[in-house]
Amino acid sequence: MRPLRTRNLIAAALVCALAFTATMAHAADTLPSWNDGAVKQSIVNFVAKVTKAGSPDFVPESQRIATFDNDGTLWAEQPMYFQVVFALDRVKALAPQHPEWQTTEPFASLLKGDLKAALAGGERSIVEIVMATHAGMTTQEFEQIVTGWVATARHPKTKRLYTEMVYQPMLELLAYLRANGFKTFIVSGGGVDFMRVFSERVYGIPPEQVVGSTGKVKFELRDGKPVLVKLPEIQLVDDKDGKPIGIHQYIGRRPIAAFGNSDGDLQMLQWTAAGSGPRFMGLIRHTDADREWAYDRQSSIGRLDKALDEGQAKGWTVVDMKRDWKIIFPPEKK
Amino acid sequence: MRPLRTRNLIAAALVCALAFTATMAHAADTLPSWNDGAVKQSIVNFVAKVTKAGSPDFVPESQRIATFDNDGTLWAEQPMYFQVVFALDRVKALAPQHPEWQTTEPFASLLKGDLKAALAGGERSIVEIVMATHAGMTTQEFEQIVTGWVATARHPKTKRLYTEMVYQPMLELLAYLRANGFKTFIVSGGGVDFMRVFSERVYGIPPEQVVGSTGKVKFELRDGKPVLVKLPEIQLVDDKDGKPIGIHQYIGRRPIAAFGNSDGDLQMLQWTAAGSGPRFMGLIRHTDADREWAYDRQSSIGRLDKALDEGQAKGWTVVDMKRDWKIIFPPEKK
Repeated sequence: MRPLRTRNLIAAALVCALAFTATMAHAADTLPSWNDGAVKQSIVNFVAKVTKAGSPDFVPESQRIATFDNDGTLWAEQPMYFQVVFALDRVKALAPQHPEWQTTEPFASLLKGDLKAALAGGERSIVEIVMATHAGMTTQEFEQIVTGWVATARHPKTKRLYTEMVYQPMLELLAYLRANGFKTFIVSGGGVDFMRVFSERVYGIPPEQVVGSTGKVKFELRDGKPVLVKLPEIQLVDDKDGKPIGIHQYIGRRPIAAFGNSDGDLQMLQWTAAGSGPRFMGLIRHTDADREWAYDRQSSIGRLDKALDEGQAKGWTVVDMKRDWKIIFPPEKK
Repeated sequence: MRPLRTRNLIAAALVCALAFTATMAHAADTLPSWNDGAVKQSIVNFVAKVTKAGSPDFVPESQRIATFDNDGTLWAEQPMYFQVVFALDRVKALAPQHPEWQTTEPFASLLKGDLKAALAGGERSIVEIVMATHAGMTTQEFEQIVTGWVATARHPKTKRLYTEMVYQPMLELLAYLRANGFKTFIVSGGGVDFMRVFSERVYGIPPEQVVGSTGKVKFELRDGKPVLVKLPEIQLVDDKDGKPIGIHQYIGRRPIAAFGNSDGDLQMLQWTAAGSGPRFMGLIRHTDADREWAYDRQSSIGRLDKALDEGQAKGWTVVDMKRDWKIIFPPEKK
């Protein structure tokens, strides 16, 4: 054993004391943007229960898997999914290289500024737009494009960067769970190559913990240098049934906690609920037309209908944004 | 700040001192089953370089991704891939429920004990056997079957459990990398649902860090309870080109270190090598006919030919099992 002198002892003690103080400060500030009430209490109780060694509800760290939807759960999704805005911006940027788009739908309407006509074809139009803007380039090229967009594009209503349209209470929840030994994952219908560009910086969730809709890629050697080319073919639509499938294939372990906000999250919540031992199923309800948006059963984006019925019937935690959240978005940096 | 008394200070210092001593002890015991020499030195040098704060080669922890092939890299693969042994055992176990197998190839030959005839159909025979034994059940049922097999089946030559046919030097390497802030992943042609059953216990690699060949699954509610049913359809063959594809889709970040043992790992090593900054590409060469097996360019299992040429040409680290490893398998427990 290396001899330690008193001076070293004191220094080591100070380091430990500082670490200890930081932990105490964190505990006192748990979920500061959440109003006190049944919802906050249900989260804190669940975490206390599964982390208490020796208790019958104790869950070992390795099994503390928490999954989060992204659109409408971690960041906003109105007036349309942010990734769709990205795709539309890309169509405009790429138009000079595609003269044929001037006369082909849905691109023609889109370039004339008629979004409604462009999206009249429903899901097929969106798929066409996404394929035209998310494929035919290497994964590295796509990453650079998204990086540039995320750094500059601004939300039409708030004029903030899209990555600032994240929910402050959810950022605190992610950090709180991680501080309690949870591993946090995104499980979203959004494109995985899109989300991974900013997930670590914005949410503290590294790329390898992001599950999302996935396109096929092809390996190629170009001048002896390997690249992966994004193909216009879907591998996984990580929505509805696709969420438990994605969880199984990519994580390989059932979450003990899951959070969503729409019917697209129902199967993920059912899958989470069906495991044994303590479980937490959370639904974020958009109830705040002043500070965010208010929508649920009738919305074409983020419809919350069946999942709300099932959640209420089964006693899942329903977060009411207006009632439960002190603030919605992080304060603007001066 | 909470006041700390002297007694607390001393107690905290002791905790820190113990932690420090443990770290020192670990450094002294680095890779005990590796013989001293250029190979061991290349590993230690690489780790020292990327973990040295302030050095031009420093790599932040979040980017210290290391990927490992499984068959022939972390555990043995002779006289045939262990998962194929599992599949053959399953055919025998399921035969009473499949009278038609008595007259259908490849099952008929297999059940007569004529492995050579059974596998005469090549890859198609293997796919048929795997599909018949790995699909048509829930993911939970499959997990239980593998758990049972792994706990009881023994290797024909050594009579040891297959999970004891892992390479002790590689277990040490995994632990050494993790102790230095690396995140270790398996990226293997083996089935992901098969490997995940034992990866955490045997390798310290949790299910969510295992990438492997993946089958499609279907979400179903059975009596209101959600299950995932394994389908006889392939989603990803995680071999050759499939390895960088799997790395991109499942990890989303390029490794800085990768280890393989066969031509099936070549593209993973190329993909790793093509990143910027310090890189480590390792090939395990099976050179020890006495303690393990000796095979490379002519082998039908784990053929190492093109990858060896490319590795030697490019200066990748080639581990010679006979020369570089003090022991191959962990000592038997009494």
